[in-house]
Order: sequence, then structure tokens, then C-alpha cells
Amino acid sequence: MTAYKEMLAKAKYRLRGHLPETIGTGIEQMKNGDLGALPDIYGTGAIIEDFQELISKELGKEQSVFFPSGTMAQQIALRIWSEEKCLKRVAYHPLCHLEIHEKDGLKVLHQIKSVLLGEPDRLFTLEDLRKMKEPVSCVLFELPQRELGGLLPEWEELVAMTSYCREHDIFTHLDGARLMEVLPFYGKTAAEVCRLFDSVYISFYKTFGGITGAMLSGKKDFIDQSKVWKRRHGGDLHHLYPYIISSRYCYELRKDKMAEYWEGAKAYGEMLGSLPGVRIVPKVPVCNMFHVHFEYPVSRVERALMQVMKKNDLALFGAITAIDLSRSKSEIWIGDSFSLVDETLVRQGIELLEEELKRE
Amino acid sequence: MTAYKEMLAKAKYRLRGHLPETIGTGIEQMKNGDLGALPDIYGTGAIIEDFQELISKELGKEQSVFFPSGTMAQQIALRIWSEEKCLKRVAYHPLCHLEIHEKDGLKVLHQIKSVLLGEPDRLFTLEDLRKMKEPVSCVLFELPQRELGGLLPEWEELVAMTSYCREHDIFTHLDGARLMEVLPFYGKTAAEVCRLFDSVYISFYKTFGGITGAMLSGKKDFIDQSKVWKRRHGGDLHHLYPYIISSRYCYELRKDKMAEYWEGAKAYGEMLGSLPGVRIVPKVPVCNMFHVHFEYPVSRVERALMQVMKKNDLALFGAITAIDLSRSKSEIWIGDSFSLVDETLVRQGIELLEEELKRE
Repeated sequence: MTAYKEMLAKAKYRLRGHLPETIGTGIEQMKNGDLGALPDIYGTGAIIEDFQELISKELGKEQSVFFPSGTMAQQIALRIWSEEKCLKRVAYHPLCHLEIHEKDGLKVLHQIKSVLLGEPDRLFTLEDLRKMKEPVSCVLFELPQRELGGLLPEWEELVAMTSYCREHDIFTHLDGARLMEVLPFYGKTAAEVCRLFDSVYISFYKTFGGITGAMLSGKKDFIDQSKVWKRRHGGDLHHLYPYIISSRYCYELRKDKMAEYWEGAKAYGEMLGSLPGVRIVPKVPVCNMFHVHFEYPVSRVERALMQVMKKNDLALFGAITAIDLSRSKSEIWIGDSFSLVDETLVRQGIELLEEELKRE
Repeated sequence: MTAYKEMLAKAKYRLRGHLPETIGTGIEQMKNGDLGALPDIYGTGAIIEDFQELISKELGKEQSVFFPSGTMAQQIALRIWSEEKCLKRVAYHPLCHLEIHEKDGLKVLHQIKSVLLGEPDRLFTLEDLRKMKEPVSCVLFELPQRELGGLLPEWEELVAMTSYCREHDIFTHLDGARLMEVLPFYGKTAAEVCRLFDSVYISFYKTFGGITGAMLSGKKDFIDQSKVWKRRHGGDLHHLYPYIISSRYCYELRKDKMAEYWEGAKAYGEMLGSLPGVRIVPKVPVCNMFHVHFEYPVSRVERALMQVMKKNDLALFGAITAIDLSRSKSEIWIGDSFSLVDETLVRQGIELLEEELKRE
């Protein structure tokens, strides 16, 4: 572990995410389960079925299935839609999780090709869908677009794009890992957003802060098929209850806090926006997430942030990653920690960061 | 849940397995972790790496990787060996887990064909290997052969078969889901058995009684590749610590109890062996597992067993499954429960079972 990450783990105040999680924190969450109840067994049992039903209702979908990971859930969704159309080609954004974070599982395990829509530095649009040259079985939408700092299309554009797909007999899948986070921006319920899509995946360990776990939702026949694929992938685990209890607890704890987190993101983004050599992406956050781009290399940013931690016991960001040798970036998402830090301390921290970044 | 299964869950005395597990039992196991420690994150961190190292040492292998399931671990092992040989064909027993319990994941996700060695009702032999007509990249051995009541080849036969593979440039993989259970029969250490195989998988939720989890072990290069495939399968979970803590705790708790469990299986098998219409497979258990075949349909066996539970509060078996309309079977594995039941009560239960089975 680097010196920066070690200091991060110990900082008293932090602006990103929730309070630091230890193994004990997760086990505490699990105590909220019905301890006398029987475990789920290979995807069956009240503890898993009840939670699946709860989420189905929330998303307005017929059925849902709990998965150990979104990687597994989404590959499977795209496989089912590809088989339905006898066409192993799907379209998504160039920085889609399946394209850049899954070691090409979709291509290698499922032989599904991808069409990249639009450009890496912007959202894809209706125009991009219209310009697609090859037929696809499914378009994957990601709300918010994580690699673009949680960017979102306007509601009308989103409706136009999903309508276009329906009219052209293309299935729509929603990567809604952070779906609940965008509801305040759209002013819609989860069901209203999900109505636009044939299938939806949500995650329980992003803003919800659960240990691990995901849900895939859609029509009954789709979910029945997804259970077969879950077995094939090796995801039909003996017991999933540690993840289910933690997911459900954190879901209920935080699902109504997204507007508050978004306010935090806007306030923090504004405070950071005037720093020289620092750019907020997007300029005004549309959910509880944004990215910070630095015109400085990782080492310089980390050194400056370590000074802030030393003086104020305050972690302004999380991990800093390189864009190239001279530039770097960081991802902010607002959770429970932000509101625990006094604004004066944040401003002091940002001032010191500005000074420290100037040093060669 | 059937009336039989409901009674099973409540019986005070039971001969199969450990004490009934509730969600609370699992969470109790987890408290044995270092609660102040940081979680593992996507397969890294001390909590996962330490356990992997411990098992590598125990099995005498260079490296290990913790998997959420054996289904995932074994498909991946066979994929790696198939790619190594540029040959997507492997051989295993007709009742191999991959052939009958995984919805053809190996074939559908990995396009690997299977050659079935020997016959469903016996172990495969050196002779069967010699008679193989098609080349294969890998032979999967299962010790003990679960679907045959935990049957084992003699040590000399096992050595001859794995030597044959090595001489013919065929990789060997061990499905050792219940590997520790067979060490007393062979009088060998785990490392002495594993030395015969290029890769090994063991499970932590069979006799060990952990919540969920598996380990895949082999040479460094093999394990490095398996981590890439784990990501592709969607098995590189955010946190695995609930499973890791439980697996490690149960592994240490029970790994030296296998000889005792085996003694229990032999004693119980002998008591059951003289029941009319009942056959023990194998005749004398070679590990803590055996199967019981009934010349009666499921309904009759369940009805008889419910009478025993009613009178003696004793569950003689677990689930009863149909062989065909007139015959059925049950799988026994001996764990912690067996030694808590007085022999007199067992004999009374078996006597009553005999009487009840006779009733039309």
C-alpha cells in the first residue's frame, strides 16, 4: 500500500463515500438479518425471494434475481437478448464496464461483439443510434455514465433513444449500477425510468454501501433464463445470505438519501471548481458523483493531498489515477461522510491544496 | 417445503451432517475474523492472500486463488488446460459435476467437449484411459466419486492412472471438493495426493461446513491465468470476506476430524446394511460419505422416516430422491451430529424404520 493510501485509510474526516469500512462494519450490517431463519440455498428460500420481490416492485419489473456481481448479471442479460434475436452483437458506450473492466468476458465467454456508440469523451446520442451501420440485438444504456463523471442525457433524449430502439426492434438494457442516484435529477421514480428498458441491473455496493451484490430485473421468461446462465457462470452459490442481508439493509438505509448526496456533490464541486489546474467533470454534477481532473501528475497531487491530511486530518479525495504522465484524475462520490465535515474545514483544506499543488 | 423436509429441519437428533445451520450460525462463524481489518477488494488484500497461502502450503502447490464456487473454479481450470494444449476436449466420469449439475456451462460458455470415461455405475480405470479414442487436454479425477457414494480407487490404481496421463502429455485436474475426507483411507497427506495432479479444487462448504467458497491451486502461471478468467466469469467480487472468514474458521475446526467422521460412516453403514430392501453404496464406506438405495418409492421411505421422527425425534437421513417410480436413494455424510446421538437410539430408529418400510 502506498503512503498516500495508508494516510487515506486513517484520515478522520473524508469527503468521498461513507465512513471507512472494516470487516467488522460488514458483519454488523449482517446482524440485521433474521438470525433464526434458514439460509437461502442455491438461489431459493425466503431470504432471497423476498428481497427479489421487493426490488421487482421498486423497479416495476415482473421478476428479479440476485447475483453475486454485476459483471455476471450484465453479460448474461446481453447473452439472453442476443439469443432472442439470433444476433451476437450489442451496442454500448466506448467506456462501458463490459468493454474496459471485464477482461473481455462478453467476447471470450459469450462470443458477443460490441459496437461502440459515440465517443469516449461524451454520451452517445439518438444521432449515434441512427448512424449505426450494423444491426444489434441490444443497446446498453448506463445511467449515470460513470467514466464521464456520472453524466446523464436529458430525459427527452433518453426517451427518444429508447423509443428508437423499440421501433427498430432492438432490446434495451440498463446498467443502473447507480440508478437510484439519478432519480432526483430526473424527478422520476425508479419504475418510471425502468419502464424505458427491457432489463435492468442495479448494484448494492456502490452508493448503497453494501458488501457485495447485484440485482437483475425484467420479465419472468428473461429472469428464468438468467437463472440457468447464473448456474453456468458458477454464480448460483450455496448461500448468498451474507450479501443479501447487507444489500437489503444498506438499500433501505440509503435509498432516500440520494437527493441529499447530490446536494453535497454540487456544493463540493463548486468549491473545487475555482482551483487552478483543476477541472470538475461534469461542470455541475447531475448526481452524487463527479470526476476531478488535474493538470498535474499523480505524484504531485498525492503529495499535496498528504499535506492536507497531515495538517487537517482531512481526505479531500480517494484514489488518484494517472491520465498520462503529466495529468491525473480522481472520482468523487458523496455518501454519509460529507455531511460530517464542517464547511470551514473543507475550505481550509482546499486552500492548502491550492498552495501545495503550486510547489514543483 | 414438503412435510418430510419440515420435520427434518426440526428433528432434535440427526445422523447426517452437522447441526442445522441458521443464518445466525454463519454470522457467528464470521466473528472469528479480525474485525478491525480492512476487507479484501477484488481478490486482493491480506485476508484473502493469507488464506490462499495457507491452503497452498497444505496442498503443496505454488499458489491458490479463492473462488465463490467450485463450478466456476473447475470450468476455468479445464479452460486453461484446454488452451494450453489447443484442444477443447477433456475427459471425466459420466457423473462428473460438470456433466450433470452445471447446465452445461463447460460446453456452452467454453465450447469444451467431454469424453465420458467408464460407466455411470463404477469408477473409471486405467483400462478406460487406455481405451480412449480421442485425444484430450485434461482428465478430471474426482476423489471421492460423490455420485457413487464417495467411492475411491486404490492408491496404486490412482498413481497408475495419473502416471499414464503424464506419460501421454495429458493434464490432470482433481475435483477435490471432499479431498480432506479421503486422506484417512489413503493414509496420505493432502500434499501427497495433490502431487499427482496439475491442478486441484477443494470446497469449504461440504464436510467443512463453511457458508460458501472454494479454492483452486496449482502453479503460479496457471493461477495467474485463473484470476483473469475469474474476472471474466463475474467471480472477482468486491468483497469475499464473509466467505473467506467462514471457510477458514471451518477448515481449521474440522480438517483433523475426518478420520472420526469416517469411523461414524462405517458404524452407521453397518447398522443399516442388514435392513431388507436397503443397500449401502459402497458396501463399506471409504470416507465419511455413503449412499443408501431403497427398493421403495420416495413417498414410502419418507412416510416411514416421518414415523421415526415422530417417535424418536431422530432424522436418520436427509433428502430422499427418486431413482425411478419404485426406487429411491439418500446421501449420508457424517459430520458433527452423529457422535451426539446415542447408539441405542439409532438402533431403535432403524428397527422402527424396518417395520414402517414393510407397510404398503
